[in-house]
Amino acid sequence: MNSENFTLCEKVVAPSYVRQGSQARRGHEQLIRLLLEQGKCPEEGWSESTVELFLNELAVMDSNNFLGNCGVGEREGRVASGLVARRHYRLIHGIGRSGDIAAVQPKAAGSSLLNKLTNSVVLDILKISGFVASCFVVPMATGMSLTLCFLTLRHRRPKARYIIWPRIDQKSCFKSMITAGFEPVVVENVLDGDELRTDLEAIERKIEELGAENVLCVHSTTSCFAPRVPDRLEELATMCAKYDIPHIVNNAYGVQSSKCMHLIQQGARVGRIDAFVQSLDKNFMVPVGGAIIAGFDEAFVQEISKMYPGRASASPSLDVLITLLSLGASGYKKYLSERKEIYSFLAQELKNLASAHGERLLHTPRNPISLAMSLDGLQASSDQAVTQLGSMLFTRQVSGARVIPLGKEQVVNGRTFCGFMSHSNSYPCPYLNAASAIGITREDVTLCMKKLDKCLKMLKKDAVKSSSTVFLKCTIQWNK
Amino acid sequence: MNSENFTLCEKVVAPSYVRQGSQARRGHEQLIRLLLEQGKCPEEGWSESTVELFLNELAVMDSNNFLGNCGVGEREGRVASGLVARRHYRLIHGIGRSGDIAAVQPKAAGSSLLNKLTNSVVLDILKISGFVASCFVVPMATGMSLTLCFLTLRHRRPKARYIIWPRIDQKSCFKSMITAGFEPVVVENVLDGDELRTDLEAIERKIEELGAENVLCVHSTTSCFAPRVPDRLEELATMCAKYDIPHIVNNAYGVQSSKCMHLIQQGARVGRIDAFVQSLDKNFMVPVGGAIIAGFDEAFVQEISKMYPGRASASPSLDVLITLLSLGASGYKKYLSERKEIYSFLAQELKNLASAHGERLLHTPRNPISLAMSLDGLQASSDQAVTQLGSMLFTRQVSGARVIPLGKEQVVNGRTFCGFMSHSNSYPCPYLNAASAIGITREDVTLCMKKLDKCLKMLKKDAVKSSSTVFLKCTIQWNK
Amino acid sequence: MNSENFTLCEKVVAPSYVRQGSQARRGHEQLIRLLLEQGKCPEEGWSESTVELFLNELAVMDSNNFLGNCGVGEREGRVASGLVARRHYRLIHGIGRSGDIAAVQPKAAGSSLLNKLTNSVVLDILKISGFVASCFVVPMATGMSLTLCFLTLRHRRPKARYIIWPRIDQKSCFKSMITAGFEPVVVENVLDGDELRTDLEAIERKIEELGAENVLCVHSTTSCFAPRVPDRLEELATMCAKYDIPHIVNNAYGVQSSKCMHLIQQGARVGRIDAFVQSLDKNFMVPVGGAIIAGFDEAFVQEISKMYPGRASASPSLDVLITLLSLGASGYKKYLSERKEIYSFLAQELKNLASAHGERLLHTPRNPISLAMSLDGLQASSDQAVTQLGSMLFTRQVSGARVIPLGKEQVVNGRTFCGFMSHSNSYPCPYLNAASAIGITREDVTLCMKKLDKCLKMLKKDAVKSSSTVFLKCTIQWNK
Amino acid sequence: MNSENFTLCEKVVAPSYVRQGSQARRGHEQLIRLLLEQGKCPEEGWSESTVELFLNELAVMDSNNFLGNCGVGEREGRVASGLVARRHYRLIHGIGRSGDIAAVQPKAAGSSLLNKLTNSVVLDILKISGFVASCFVVPMATGMSLTLCFLTLRHRRPKARYIIWPRIDQKSCFKSMITAGFEPVVVENVLDGDELRTDLEAIERKIEELGAENVLCVHSTTSCFAPRVPDRLEELATMCAKYDIPHIVNNAYGVQSSKCMHLIQQGARVGRIDAFVQSLDKNFMVPVGGAIIAGFDEAFVQEISKMYPGRASASPSLDVLITLLSLGASGYKKYLSERKEIYSFLAQELKNLASAHGERLLHTPRNPISLAMSLDGLQASSDQAVTQLGSMLFTRQVSGARVIPLGKEQVVNGRTFCGFMSHSNSYPCPYLNAASAIGITREDVTLCMKKLDKCLKMLKKDAVKSSSTVFLKCTIQWNK
Repeated sequence: MNSENFTLCEKVVAPSYVRQGSQARRGHEQLIRLLLEQGKCPEEGWSESTVELFLNELAVMDSNNFLGNCGVGEREGRVASGLVARRHYRLIHGIGRSGDIAAVQPKAAGSSLLNKLTNSVVLDILKISGFVASCFVVPMATGMSLTLCFLTLRHRRPKARYIIWPRIDQKSCFKSMITAGFEPVVVENVLDGDELRTDLEAIERKIEELGAENVLCVHSTTSCFAPRVPDRLEELATMCAKYDIPHIVNNAYGVQSSKCMHLIQQGARVGRIDAFVQSLDKNFMVPVGGAIIAGFDEAFVQEISKMYPGRASASPSLDVLITLLSLGASGYKKYLSERKEIYSFLAQELKNLASAHGERLLHTPRNPISLAMSLDGLQASSDQAVTQLGSMLFTRQVSGARVIPLGKEQVVNGRTFCGFMSHSNSYPCPYLNAASAIGITREDVTLCMKKLDKCLKMLKKDAVKSSSTVFLKCTIQWNK
Repeated sequence: MNSENFTLCEKVVAPSYVRQGSQARRGHEQLIRLLLEQGKCPEEGWSESTVELFLNELAVMDSNNFLGNCGVGEREGRVASGLVARRHYRLIHGIGRSGDIAAVQPKAAGSSLLNKLTNSVVLDILKISGFVASCFVVPMATGMSLTLCFLTLRHRRPKARYIIWPRIDQKSCFKSMITAGFEPVVVENVLDGDELRTDLEAIERKIEELGAENVLCVHSTTSCFAPRVPDRLEELATMCAKYDIPHIVNNAYGVQSSKCMHLIQQGARVGRIDAFVQSLDKNFMVPVGGAIIAGFDEAFVQEISKMYPGRASASPSLDVLITLLSLGASGYKKYLSERKEIYSFLAQELKNLASAHGERLLHTPRNPISLAMSLDGLQASSDQAVTQLGSMLFTRQVSGARVIPLGKEQVVNGRTFCGFMSHSNSYPCPYLNAASAIGITREDVTLCMKKLDKCLKMLKKDAVKSSSTVFLKCTIQWNK
Repeated sequence: MNSENFTLCEKVVAPSYVRQGSQARRGHEQLIRLLLEQGKCPEEGWSESTVELFLNELAVMDSNNFLGNCGVGEREGRVASGLVARRHYRLIHGIGRSGDIAAVQPKAAGSSLLNKLTNSVVLDILKISGFVASCFVVPMATGMSLTLCFLTLRHRRPKARYIIWPRIDQKSCFKSMITAGFEPVVVENVLDGDELRTDLEAIERKIEELGAENVLCVHSTTSCFAPRVPDRLEELATMCAKYDIPHIVNNAYGVQSSKCMHLIQQGARVGRIDAFVQSLDKNFMVPVGGAIIAGFDEAFVQEISKMYPGRASASPSLDVLITLLSLGASGYKKYLSERKEIYSFLAQELKNLASAHGERLLHTPRNPISLAMSLDGLQASSDQAVTQLGSMLFTRQVSGARVIPLGKEQVVNGRTFCGFMSHSNSYPCPYLNAASAIGITREDVTLCMKKLDKCLKMLKKDAVKSSSTVFLKCTIQWNK
Repeated sequence: MNSENFTLCEKVVAPSYVRQGSQARRGHEQLIRLLLEQGKCPEEGWSESTVELFLNELAVMDSNNFLGNCGVGEREGRVASGLVARRHYRLIHGIGRSGDIAAVQPKAAGSSLLNKLTNSVVLDILKISGFVASCFVVPMATGMSLTLCFLTLRHRRPKARYIIWPRIDQKSCFKSMITAGFEPVVVENVLDGDELRTDLEAIERKIEELGAENVLCVHSTTSCFAPRVPDRLEELATMCAKYDIPHIVNNAYGVQSSKCMHLIQQGARVGRIDAFVQSLDKNFMVPVGGAIIAGFDEAFVQEISKMYPGRASASPSLDVLITLLSLGASGYKKYLSERKEIYSFLAQELKNLASAHGERLLHTPRNPISLAMSLDGLQASSDQAVTQLGSMLFTRQVSGARVIPLGKEQVVNGRTFCGFMSHSNSYPCPYLNAASAIGITREDVTLCMKKLDKCLKMLKKDAVKSSSTVFLKCTIQWNK
């Protein structure tokens, strides 16, 4: 209410109470003021009521909510269903304009503010780990966002046909290059102890073999399933600088790990990183469907944002803004530190369980999120036991525990991958993955260990009798 | 509640009342059964309570809502904010898998059902106007969806570099080709009375000049601003068949017009249309951010859906499903017929207004949605009057009424367009657009005419004094 | 947002757009201003977004939503469940204070405003039909609200023990007197044609017999089931004035009928009506649980409001305020006129149906809401047929159609009523009631007639075979 | 979804996923089954999604949500506003019938279940502290609920005119007797150290003086503001048994204290307690407006529930059910134990603060919730300082901290109370109250102490200059 209305209220209830109410309103507005002024994630999280007050204020500024509006165009933010209008807080116009997904819409000042503020708040959070010049939220998942980066680079390097890619067995990463119309050049990883690491020499060889000018970019990865570990970004960035090749990093769920973020910082400091892409849902606990494209050169990031043709869904931006305002920077950091603690807890629990079953926790200290436990013994007991373990865990509602058998072959977009899912043609042993990702709880770990223990015991008992009916092809579990 | 629970209820309240309650439940389930069985939009709309019951049922089937679930993966559908969880009905996992945006997710049976059903219900609605083989909802706006189509075609025609495009002055259409990495070949329209129509001969000349094998596709348009009219799809489709060139149609807001849909049907019947793309928000009154990619060859449509790397936002699918279930086929058809009626009403009103002000309604009978009124007289009175009219309407909350001055030049992605916004290098007169799009009401038209009349009168009065402070560059209005 | 924040917004998006957004906000505030200024129901209904904006503004003014509040009392508006907080728009403190249910709470300026405004808006609606001095919403159903009126009168007439009550067969009316600790003196109605009307002479006789000073009040009724008709308020009011006896009117669902409201006006004009009580749910289509206590003497109404000890639920007030703001006066009046039209429609349909089955519509023109159709023929066919009809209608989801058999006896609080449910010891025939109450639709009537027709046909066919299992005691249907 | 629909789902997505989804559904239903079977508060709280699923299931059973329902009655649960329908989960019919607020409604099996289950779950929670025979939730605040108890007793003791009431300075308690039409006989408390305690001898004297048969009941209190302490229930109950006088206990916010509940248990064990009444909002953190009437004799509790004439609002029942299902018994107990801990913390903090300011914490060990700190020194510094402290705390958003000056006189319903608010004609010193009530946090205490400290320092500084503008009459703070 504005001051005129507050004055009117004073005729209805005692002025001193109204004055206190109006002061209380100012408390909420003060929080909004700080947000608008600084464009930063508030240190302390907002209450639901402040968040909703703010969103309602934004909605009121969009033309579809103007009380006197008359629309004679073809896109007026009309909504047929009240359920739909409400779930979007009546913010209907999406974000961006045909020219630029980060641009302002005349018809929708509120949605435009939402868009700008979200990008600004998200940038603030990314900066926790160091220098980042610019970023924007895009309502597409990581894979399609990578595609957009590659398509942008095409205009800079019209002759280039190849993307050099240290192998990581996730379909969407591979497809992101195919969809953009490029030929992925897969470089196998090298085994270093239990870890699978970037083969820097092989990459350099490939660059020279293909000719740097024919290479669109190097496409590296941070967060990944153990025993693969994050790519050697520092060395890759140096190499890209040396050969003048762009470098795009898939930082899928790396925002939650200070190690991954540090790698990117270091890479950018000593060499070249043009853009890095991260998933909204995996790092910020929002529904699937958005990503952040970020970089150290504002001009290039803007170039990407201008490649997106047309307006876009505001839904992922809305989700991440609500989430960050609700958590506050302190709330988000608390999630990060809990995740880190539970990583150690999970490692210890897995180690104990492994030794109890004659297996071992693979030694992958460079992977800050994912862990792997060998399944040699299980494999020895029966050929099918490993895949069977996967389906047993699935039906017991253990989700996210991947089982990786030996020697699986898979054709993806015409290319055959040996040892698929293991990031290697011939990893020495089958294994099981578990990860400590943001939002995980101690209860998740404890319950998972209990169920895993039970499954392993059951499998040992009747090593042979595989109940084919419950059997689920393990393929269903590997990809995202 | 299951039958066991109903039986328990009978111990608390009289069995006959419980029995009636359980029968009532069956009423809702019967509607759901029909939907699952037939995959069609229900004839009569569902009540909000049935819709929500159904969505809650779907959510319960997703692993993030399993009561006993323990997650040790990196994407478990965790949500940090209750506000976010609720607004998505706790459907967090998005749609699709890395392999295919139409694929089923093991972790999310409910979201997968949502995805499949949405595509099926949308297909049913598209079929109202004739034969369509297949379609899917994609959480990207029309422009980016067209890009995805072009990227898919690249794999079929690796050598092709050009896209032939009858000129339509909407940035996102143009950018969709640029982003995909192709060179748009703009073919100017021809003036036929007041209408701007496809120059078929010029197109055929271009094909022969460039060589059919170098042309990725013809990219035509149905719905557009008058005085441009929908492209001559029948002839274009025939030509594409003759030269064996793919044909992609931008059917932006054409689903709402039986004429546009009929053109596509005819094109596909006599010649070649590979895919047609339409906006969700403009045709189904949902928030911005989704499109439908449809076609007559299921295999090709599936090829496109498999090009999308990774999972995607379920939000646009959810919106359109809620909307169509709430409206029912009959409700949606009612919207269509009202739109048609109001088109005639708007035409008549504009005609009257025009003649009162010494202008005229341009004669564009082939455009079933958009209308244009000349602004010759206004232009004559003052140079700035036409653009000024635009800003006056804007501040008076008339949205969607575009004002098109003469001879505007604009550079888009390096290419200069003369007479930008008018789809023509030199349209004979400036004009104002108004459209009868789905969801428009008689009140919108009446109010708009009243305000427009006032503005025109004011401008005549002080033809010279342009208040530069309120002046808004007309550029802000043209694009979406 | 306040002006400071709007200014900050202008740094993020173009000032002209922000200015328009801020103007749009003023549109909503203007509506709120009018409400605060005039305290009247707005002529045109508000949009959901204005209603919610307003409620959020109110909530912000309550201390439980102060961002800096610290509570060390025993009632601080703490809420354990988010679901509960949200469904009450975070208005937790209820209404009133220990001294007066209409009083202002220092801790809850917003809830206090809500309370005052609701009473003011409701008063405005009651005034549609004439003069009313004062009223307040109380979160108790009609019966308990009548009790409160009687308890208030007790302090004025400490010696009085009796309440004179023209018979109406609704338990809660009878119990309202018992609960208050008085002895109801039931005066039988007289038959006038088909109508049951107030027996004025018998009442006067009773007054003289008991002694006016021993009579607490006359307790009369307007809205009721046909063939009973509203009491003769004018004559009763005159009589009360003559004997100096208070007069309380149960106007249960009479607000929806101009006839009932007119009767009250007339009564108050020519004689004495101290207070009249009406149901919120039955007149304003809100959930059960509230009533309005109104009167022509502000002091007496206030006396009643001061009798309610302690604070009370704001829920019924909130419901009726939301409803009236959403409908607007015009929307509410539209409901009233539709109800009236459908009354005629229902009468005609019932008449036709009756004659088709050898029955007749009872002639009760003085009852403006309820109708009755005789069931003589049905009764003749079988003893159980009449009650069986009731249960058949129940299981066929015809709700509200009451079936009244002959000669039912019922003991209520120790008193025996003959011919219970029929307001008469010996009404000449059994009958079926149907009412045209606010919110009814033509579809309700049509569907009901269809089902009723079917049931009557079925009963005729197998007049004897009463399926005892489906049989439901008709008693379950009569009372509320 | 029923099994038929699940089977249909299996044609759309893989059967194994659907099967898992259907199992997951069973998980929720299992929780509902337990609730229905046992009627107890679940040990562990339910998730929001289970709670909403359950409420939706209940709503579906009410006739207003039947898809095929046609209503021709005057109360059909019609709702005009979607906002209203949704916030009540479409449960519109309220609870109870005219005969009994605990009775089942034929039209509303779902609401009836809600009512029965709420009473059962609440009973289960009350039983935590011992034996309770029966209870029901009533949508009226404590005061009006006490009135209902007194009105019920009137029928048992028609001659009685007096209620004996150990003084407690809360208006609504006093008014509850006045409203019921009885004459309160106020018995002053005796000073025992700092504590004000029940004067048993004076009470017995009064009984004999008035004659036991003329006394309706003794009306005692548990929870209260220090330095008053809970009444000596054991002795009072024994006395009531001896004289055969009913005994009604006002247990306002005593459910949260095991001491208060224990007193009631003991009283009932050794003597007579007919009913005890407690506030819903103060004990269960729900919005104001409901109470629980409980007792040890099921027949008497039922008698009270049958006194409520007509149906009633389901809103308070819905709130408390949602809250208890969400918390679970364990969650509720956790609140109780936290409250107890913070009581000690608050006591220690107040003690320290008091001694720092030359005041002292009054020694009131028998009051388990409320504490009092003397304000002798402040009083000495200035006459107005004490009341000024109250208004200073109010404007600093310290809510619930009551300031009690000396010698205030107040007339309530014609009776003058000396030393009002202090439960005593002449308490030795002015003081400030603070309470550790359910839901309080450590932050509340810390913040309150900080602000209180500041205020006391400020008052000392300029002991004389009372800024009359900010000055708020202390009267506004005392009552609820």
